Amino acid sequence: MSRRQLLGRIGLAAGGTMMYQAMTSLGFAAESGYKGPVQLEGSPRGASVLVLGAGLAGMTTAFELRKAGYQVRILEYNARPGGRNWTLRGGDTYTELGGQTQHCGFDEGLYINPGPWRIPHHHRAVLAYCKQFNVPLESFVQVNYNAFLHNTEAFGGKPQRFREIDADYKGQVSELLAKATAQGALDQQVTKQDQELLLESLRSWGALDRNMAYVAGDDSNLRRGYAKYPGGGLGGKPELSTPLSLEDVLRSRLWKQLAAGTNIEMQTSMFQPVGGMDQLGKAFARALGPGVIQYNARVTGIDQDEHGVTVTYEDTGAPGSTHTATADWCVCTIPFSVLSRIPVKVGPAMADAITKLPYASSVKVGLQFKRRFWEEDEAIYGGISYTNLPISNISYPSTGFHAPGKGVLLGAYVWGLDAFDFTSHSPAERVRRTVAYGSQIHPQYPKEFDNGISVAWHRVPGNHGCFGTWTEDLRAQHYQAACQIDGRIAMAGEHISYIPAWQEGAVLSAHDVIGRLHAKVMATGGRA
Amino acid sequence: MSRRQLLGRIGLAAGGTMMYQAMTSLGFAAESGYKGPVQLEGSPRGASVLVLGAGLAGMTTAFELRKAGYQVRILEYNARPGGRNWTLRGGDTYTELGGQTQHCGFDEGLYINPGPWRIPHHHRAVLAYCKQFNVPLESFVQVNYNAFLHNTEAFGGKPQRFREIDADYKGQVSELLAKATAQGALDQQVTKQDQELLLESLRSWGALDRNMAYVAGDDSNLRRGYAKYPGGGLGGKPELSTPLSLEDVLRSRLWKQLAAGTNIEMQTSMFQPVGGMDQLGKAFARALGPGVIQYNARVTGIDQDEHGVTVTYEDTGAPGSTHTATADWCVCTIPFSVLSRIPVKVGPAMADAITKLPYASSVKVGLQFKRRFWEEDEAIYGGISYTNLPISNISYPSTGFHAPGKGVLLGAYVWGLDAFDFTSHSPAERVRRTVAYGSQIHPQYPKEFDNGISVAWHRVPGNHGCFGTWTEDLRAQHYQAACQIDGRIAMAGEHISYIPAWQEGAVLSAHDVIGRLHAKVMATGGRA
Repeated sequence: MSRRQLLGRIGLAAGGTMMYQAMTSLGFAAESGYKGPVQLEGSPRGASVLVLGAGLAGMTTAFELRKAGYQVRILEYNARPGGRNWTLRGGDTYTELGGQTQHCGFDEGLYINPGPWRIPHHHRAVLAYCKQFNVPLESFVQVNYNAFLHNTEAFGGKPQRFREIDADYKGQVSELLAKATAQGALDQQVTKQDQELLLESLRSWGALDRNMAYVAGDDSNLRRGYAKYPGGGLGGKPELSTPLSLEDVLRSRLWKQLAAGTNIEMQTSMFQPVGGMDQLGKAFARALGPGVIQYNARVTGIDQDEHGVTVTYEDTGAPGSTHTATADWCVCTIPFSVLSRIPVKVGPAMADAITKLPYASSVKVGLQFKRRFWEEDEAIYGGISYTNLPISNISYPSTGFHAPGKGVLLGAYVWGLDAFDFTSHSPAERVRRTVAYGSQIHPQYPKEFDNGISVAWHRVPGNHGCFGTWTEDLRAQHYQAACQIDGRIAMAGEHISYIPAWQEGAVLSAHDVIGRLHAKVMATGGRA
Repeated sequence: MSRRQLLGRIGLAAGGTMMYQAMTSLGFAAESGYKGPVQLEGSPRGASVLVLGAGLAGMTTAFELRKAGYQVRILEYNARPGGRNWTLRGGDTYTELGGQTQHCGFDEGLYINPGPWRIPHHHRAVLAYCKQFNVPLESFVQVNYNAFLHNTEAFGGKPQRFREIDADYKGQVSELLAKATAQGALDQQVTKQDQELLLESLRSWGALDRNMAYVAGDDSNLRRGYAKYPGGGLGGKPELSTPLSLEDVLRSRLWKQLAAGTNIEMQTSMFQPVGGMDQLGKAFARALGPGVIQYNARVTGIDQDEHGVTVTYEDTGAPGSTHTATADWCVCTIPFSVLSRIPVKVGPAMADAITKLPYASSVKVGLQFKRRFWEEDEAIYGGISYTNLPISNISYPSTGFHAPGKGVLLGAYVWGLDAFDFTSHSPAERVRRTVAYGSQIHPQYPKEFDNGISVAWHRVPGNHGCFGTWTEDLRAQHYQAACQIDGRIAMAGEHISYIPAWQEGAVLSAHDVIGRLHAKVMATGGRA
């Protein structure tokens, strides 16, 4: 009897109980630093907290502190909750810094998420709120083997299917390593027994044939696809495709995108809220209840003394107006890109952190087309095509497959210098460029284009940037200071985390700060 | 100006039109042998066709032939349409060969698909019918980096996360090949320039550090996961995990499952109809309209002469009754596993094919649990855990994430000899074994188990097996004969295709046979 059979019989005989005891070391998932639901013990005896910003960090802070008995109020710049958690739909109007206004012309039910657009399965704090607030989730398709990899300098600029580059890269690499093994190149470092296992694994994993070669055949074609796919009846016999050479694959540089979906933040499963990412922000606002968030409040100064915090703000509906809000404590989630332009009374270390953190530039462009040609013509359902053109990504919707009528995709997700360039152009010109670039990948673009909208994060009024970009040096110098409770003021947001740019970072930074704030409040007896 | 910039400017200046013309070689997807919607020219002038079986092949045949003007009637053994396209829900009753009856005890909205359960994005014929019949689709999660790989003989039987084995296998293999390259082992076959590219690609793709080593560090941890994940605020700094050694990865044999999701039939995107696979079968039946399918009709003989076809059948509600149906032609989709037990008047070559094709054995077991512990405790949302235990797979639902109440997963998908063994046991014992085996992977099983149901395909009355298993030899000897129109009788189904076991094979075999049948009818002037 093999060990497998023995273990199997043990399982059958003992039921699960013994196995359960034998396997407690298995443990449960502890990803993302989420420590479970927030539990704050002890009454704050009426202590009040003013939260600045109704993004995910601010609303998390408010929600949990209210539950613990605090008096909480949020001042929010926008007329809506969510901050960067934001969805643009038909009928929406958006005015960017510089005054240019766009009217979103998408059809009913179509949208783009200018900010966060996907939730990894290990972002458990965000997922826990989705569950708690009954925000329905659906799968976000990140990797699509049938999407394109495109390099204007490879294959004459002709897009390749992800499937082909992925299969051929793995196949060619496996064949190389198998040859090196056969030549004895690994004899110093790998035992003969393990070399046998290695060869067996390379054959399976790299789709090599029985001669350990990656060639036209069923092994390779079951990965890279056939020239003529298997079909039905008399004409059903498939015809083989020929793999790309090692040289062609390497020189195309298209292998650069093969690992994108294996990065921990992009690994399956990923999610999106049904109907747009703002369903989560709206759910938070509903959970807070009416009157907690004061919208259209532009913070103009943050002051504190030993008794409390005083924040001045302008009602954006009445420019020049000055209002004041006070509280015992303040949790400020205003991005440093904005906060650095506002007088804030904190110590020099935190002040330094506020001014030193640079913000990433990024531009997203949503395009509406007259039909979902990527599905109809090209069998691309969700996922991402990558290109070396400035648009960088074309991301296809992960929902509404086969829906009649028009369709919206993310036509550009522009980064770095390209994003600064895009940002410098008018919204209409950004859309025009996105259509022109994308036409090199999808020739249907010019004929099928309907309308578009763009969000350049350095021109978003409440943000002035996309997310805080901590370099190693900057983090070493300023992160600890940025995390402190400076007198009665503390910071929260994705920039106060090791998960920058992600909602999980914002939420976990809130969890961290309210735990420390509550401890301080309890130690000092609640109210000031 | 680089070539990239130049091409970019061409795109911008010329708009898409020039690009479109330059890229017509791009072509559109031609996967799966689907040639587009069926178009049959010319009137069959009242010719009649009797279709045996209301599975996907039979209903496709009937739908398309009716559209072309044929008189069509279907005889179906079951009391429902779909055949192997089948969904079991709470309240369903199922009696298998041998007389054992199971009552499905799943809660409202929960189900398993005993037969086909996923649709690849390149199965374009099936997808076209989903679109035509407005069958909503959602993503089917195949690969889940957070699901388990389990070998009772590796790691003390402790399940490993897919992510860890995947990252460590790629990392260790990349490091080996990088070392071999540095030692000059590739000098005979790869140019120095390409070796540079190879090393650059291995570093990116294998997550090697700057020294081309796969070690504990951010490079590896961004793939395999951290010991403590990045978090928020002061305590947010991550802690590194240590990769498995090459030896441990190889000897675990868990690499066997790494390529599963890279096989063309499992590559993203994949789909399932919202609400169960039978939504497609039901949509076909609705499209056929009332009166076309005669249910509860067990075919007992198929005869033909130069004038037409005569089929005898029994009304399963009145055992022993004998009825007769006649038509000019017959398309028979009854699986050969069943057809081989029925007198069929065909020539010796087709008769031989009918008796020679073996059918795969497979068992699926659905389990309902009191809660979705795989999501709550383990952050596993959809996808598949693999094990060397006889259950083979545990597949988690790709829909209803976070739904309150009970949850159903596919607890076993048993193959080969294990399937024959499972089939030999009572339904209750199959479920008991599935729970016992699964407890080795999910210790929550015994406490959370609620109820289960199993389908052993060799005991499914209308099928007597799962799908036709053509070996290379069998296909060479019998496939052509099985595809012929033998007098007035032709076969269709997944077994008459090069895509066995898949709905696409059934539909494309129908498309193939009706094209040839129609040509024959037009050549011979329609009716007999």
